[in-house]
Amino acid sequence: MPLSEEQRAEIESLRARPRQTLRAVSEGMERHLYLAHEVLDHGFVRVIDYMGDDAAICQAARVSYGKGTRSVSDDRGLIRYLMRHWHSTPFEMCEIKLHVKLPLFVARQWIRHRTANVNEYSARYSILDREFYLPAREHLAAQSTVNNQGRGALLGDEEAARVLEILKSDAARCYDHYEEMISDEGKQGLARELARMNLPANIYTQWYWKVDLHNLFHFLRLRADAHAQYEIRAYAETIARIVADWVPAAWGAFEDYRMGGVTLSAQALDCLRRMLKGEEVTAETSGMSPREWREFEAILSGIPGQESPGG
Amino acid sequence: MPLSEEQRAEIESLRARPRQTLRAVSEGMERHLYLAHEVLDHGFVRVIDYMGDDAAICQAARVSYGKGTRSVSDDRGLIRYLMRHWHSTPFEMCEIKLHVKLPLFVARQWIRHRTANVNEYSARYSILDREFYLPAREHLAAQSTVNNQGRGALLGDEEAARVLEILKSDAARCYDHYEEMISDEGKQGLARELARMNLPANIYTQWYWKVDLHNLFHFLRLRADAHAQYEIRAYAETIARIVADWVPAAWGAFEDYRMGGVTLSAQALDCLRRMLKGEEVTAETSGMSPREWREFEAILSGIPGQESPGG
Amino acid sequence: MPLSEEQRAEIESLRARPRQTLRAVSEGMERHLYLAHEVLDHGFVRVIDYMGDDAAICQAARVSYGKGTRSVSDDRGLIRYLMRHWHSTPFEMCEIKLHVKLPLFVARQWIRHRTANVNEYSARYSILDREFYLPAREHLAAQSTVNNQGRGALLGDEEAARVLEILKSDAARCYDHYEEMISDEGKQGLARELARMNLPANIYTQWYWKVDLHNLFHFLRLRADAHAQYEIRAYAETIARIVADWVPAAWGAFEDYRMGGVTLSAQALDCLRRMLKGEEVTAETSGMSPREWREFEAILSGIPGQESPGG
Amino acid sequence: MPLSEEQRAEIESLRARPRQTLRAVSEGMERHLYLAHEVLDHGFVRVIDYMGDDAAICQAARVSYGKGTRSVSDDRGLIRYLMRHWHSTPFEMCEIKLHVKLPLFVARQWIRHRTANVNEYSARYSILDREFYLPAREHLAAQSTVNNQGRGALLGDEEAARVLEILKSDAARCYDHYEEMISDEGKQGLARELARMNLPANIYTQWYWKVDLHNLFHFLRLRADAHAQYEIRAYAETIARIVADWVPAAWGAFEDYRMGGVTLSAQALDCLRRMLKGEEVTAETSGMSPREWREFEAILSGIPGQESPGG
Repeated sequence: MPLSEEQRAEIESLRARPRQTLRAVSEGMERHLYLAHEVLDHGFVRVIDYMGDDAAICQAARVSYGKGTRSVSDDRGLIRYLMRHWHSTPFEMCEIKLHVKLPLFVARQWIRHRTANVNEYSARYSILDREFYLPAREHLAAQSTVNNQGRGALLGDEEAARVLEILKSDAARCYDHYEEMISDEGKQGLARELARMNLPANIYTQWYWKVDLHNLFHFLRLRADAHAQYEIRAYAETIARIVADWVPAAWGAFEDYRMGGVTLSAQALDCLRRMLKGEEVTAETSGMSPREWREFEAILSGIPGQESPGG
Repeated sequence: MPLSEEQRAEIESLRARPRQTLRAVSEGMERHLYLAHEVLDHGFVRVIDYMGDDAAICQAARVSYGKGTRSVSDDRGLIRYLMRHWHSTPFEMCEIKLHVKLPLFVARQWIRHRTANVNEYSARYSILDREFYLPAREHLAAQSTVNNQGRGALLGDEEAARVLEILKSDAARCYDHYEEMISDEGKQGLARELARMNLPANIYTQWYWKVDLHNLFHFLRLRADAHAQYEIRAYAETIARIVADWVPAAWGAFEDYRMGGVTLSAQALDCLRRMLKGEEVTAETSGMSPREWREFEAILSGIPGQESPGG
Repeated sequence: MPLSEEQRAEIESLRARPRQTLRAVSEGMERHLYLAHEVLDHGFVRVIDYMGDDAAICQAARVSYGKGTRSVSDDRGLIRYLMRHWHSTPFEMCEIKLHVKLPLFVARQWIRHRTANVNEYSARYSILDREFYLPAREHLAAQSTVNNQGRGALLGDEEAARVLEILKSDAARCYDHYEEMISDEGKQGLARELARMNLPANIYTQWYWKVDLHNLFHFLRLRADAHAQYEIRAYAETIARIVADWVPAAWGAFEDYRMGGVTLSAQALDCLRRMLKGEEVTAETSGMSPREWREFEAILSGIPGQESPGG
Repeated sequence: MPLSEEQRAEIESLRARPRQTLRAVSEGMERHLYLAHEVLDHGFVRVIDYMGDDAAICQAARVSYGKGTRSVSDDRGLIRYLMRHWHSTPFEMCEIKLHVKLPLFVARQWIRHRTANVNEYSARYSILDREFYLPAREHLAAQSTVNNQGRGALLGDEEAARVLEILKSDAARCYDHYEEMISDEGKQGLARELARMNLPANIYTQWYWKVDLHNLFHFLRLRADAHAQYEIRAYAETIARIVADWVPAAWGAFEDYRMGGVTLSAQALDCLRRMLKGEEVTAETSGMSPREWREFEAILSGIPGQESPGG
């Protein structure tokens, strides 16, 4: 359970004080505000604030004075058009601010998405909590044999138990030593900014993260993808469900055109046209490398391929 | 008067529908929402949406769960500390979205500030309105003789009248021809994306502009400065008054440390220390160039110098 | 002819002085350095500097110490893999700096690409030249009747002649008045920053523009596209030819996966799978809107659709 | 010694192959290319590529065709003017690409500077080396008692020895376990992306980092500052020396106006003016908080204060 009693009380007190505003309000998002969506064993995602809704995307695209007389269905059509034709700026007009608690190695993947605002808990100034990510049994997998970066088969019971034992005891020992080093009882106590270097990468950190909807979609496309590392994908999928409640029309367009869509190369498109005319196209006659051909076949069959978007 | 009856009705209708939210609310900002603050002869600034308030800056700086038990005075002290020591990320946690109507040549200066989101009215898709900026009599000035970029003395009456006559008639003629070229009455009608090239740089355009508070402060520091071109300064000063109502503590810190503050070079600091010890420092013994020395004297005397922040 | 004798002499003198460097050198790019590629009637694109080559992309992707023992064919394969799987950061490791002379209305479209560095000629400080873009006869087209933003049929001779006459005489008159207003002969002379507002949007400006290869590819995908406005496309196509000489492997991958590739929605992909199984899919059974279906058919037939990427 | 024989051979081979180029060349920078500047116990900074020199800054500021006839002294004056008046865009026209090996906790501070391009060694794909940062004796300090984030007095011998013993043995054990977990000898072997979570924050990673000169100056101002954490400061100071050789005029201006300069608040400026007129100003009559007054006194006396720029 990631939250203390005091923290829960703070959240309840925030949710107990509705106020009046003239701004655009997303009812779906109001239901999420401040609440902690649990992720992994000690992590969470909390919506702290948001700006805009589906109508705001359209209003900016039209540079209009108000909501005008457009219907929800007009708005939905416009949003799909914008998404389909890569008009990204209207989606930048929505903004979300999250409070996230996450393992340090996940934070390191996350921060590569540079077009966002971040305030992280400072381990120079403060003492980190004794909380470490330990994978659930069903996520302890071996290195993939078909993909150089990623996981393959689940570990057997014995090996999994040994791994968990190592992760647990090393984290405990490192944290004990961290505490010992910074303690000033009977001694000086090492500076926090130095002592933290003894902590392993599965320790939890937390931050405020603010991003616009266009860049959030880009994050979700890479990190909610089947080939992203499971741990960051768990966060991305939690955020995805929140976004679906916040801007349902934009989310629908994103699902259809990005998450569920595919990009085909000039060669793949050419093969496709030939196939639709009845030609039998093979790896040899495709003009693609064997790897590209495998990926192309996977797209046509609906079975995901083995490549990964990085990490 | 920049707004049509229909536009005013839309704004009133938006202001007539308060809704409930659990988000942070800035009362000072709610008063501004949607209203058109007039700028120049046909322009305006309208607040369309905002995110965060003074407390949100502190909450992000502390990476805290709620507002905690901190007092407003604690928050003010923290905000001043953050501003003084160039901790910019907590200020990035506030966001503002504006609808702005502005002359095209002002838009060209404005857009140089790249860390913002923009949706501009499309002259490929739509027809621009017949509205041109004509400077008020008191802004018609000659090229500065002490500064290569900027204005000097006011024009005399006769010259001013001639200038206004030119600006007015050229704008009218160019717009007449624009309308004629795109008209498809009895002919094909030139494409809008081509016809617009006949319009002069004082025609009005409009856009939605969204920016975080840190980058907005940067914009204001350069564009509300005495050396910025008057026309963009008029917009910056209008926005500055809005910001003062939105986040009063952050605005106060910004005024004290940025707008009202100065940056001294190593040489200037050295001179200052010598002067405070009673030494008579002159241009010759200062180690500065004549120009730097003049700027230094201007800072000490409180009389603004002649240099300009670009444009 | 866009360059003066003096400017040509400067360029020749720069090209006459090869120097030694230990950096990566792209022979294809050295041939372009400083030379003016003419675009439109008075514009140009000049390569001023560049950083990196195809091998540098691979070196960064591998975070390696040198070029290692990899072959050119290994590098080509890696580059195609990176492009196919949207690994954008290695492409960011190449950089190009251009000097561009372009009509002001093209500059306004161009500047929307924010992730770049720009230094533009200042009309506050300097006097603009008397040079205006006048479209060639074959680019004077009517507003498109199938697309709300874009051009359709060519104008007839008479209408084209009238348009050119308007553009020419309005530009001349506006410039004459610009010169008259700033002149201080026998009068004060209006400040340049004010006088420029009388100049139409087809006047030429110039800037230094620096961008990394990933963001340049994004620019080219939108602006070298058939639906971009012709005038900016002329610049994009000139730059594209330069890029092909600079980083041939990256350019090849970009052509295959971006310029020549397509993105299909989840619905389109589903239709495709059904069609490949022999099912007759129609607009009605496709699950797509009529407009999406038309675009889908255009992709399969190879005939470009009517939608446009904005501008 | 951070480099292997093979790596040294690669570097020597790169330095042994000068080529011809028409681009701007900085002789000071050519001397640094590819060489490893050692930082901390196992880290380094290597210049991989660069674009531009002092003259390129001026050329962009003037938007000129070549180097023209300006003298080095004209260029120096222009660069100082640009720096003094916060004209940042000409400095963005220079670019540097570094290969850096650094402890993970330093990488986490570094990556907060978002306006840069990064390719980091992937611990999903590759196995990290057994190299950990162990502070030198003279950097093992206690938590500061005057500053909530930072170091104070050096640790005594006994405590220092205990700290080093902990850091060393925990790092060794964690790495042994990392190797054991990923080993597939006689078992499956845990996926690398999971096993890495057991590694402490003093393990070394490496990346390619590319940044423009303006943003590099911003990085150096914060990270070469006396209040930055020592470990990142060690990198910043190494880079600073390289920059001084690359663009000596820009570096000189940066030193005078940023590193050696100070920013004074409106209140501080007011106090200063009163003091220069002979008034005795005290904390009480200053209008500043006690903390601000102490910082002001520190500036005037030349003794650095106790505040820190974050971390």
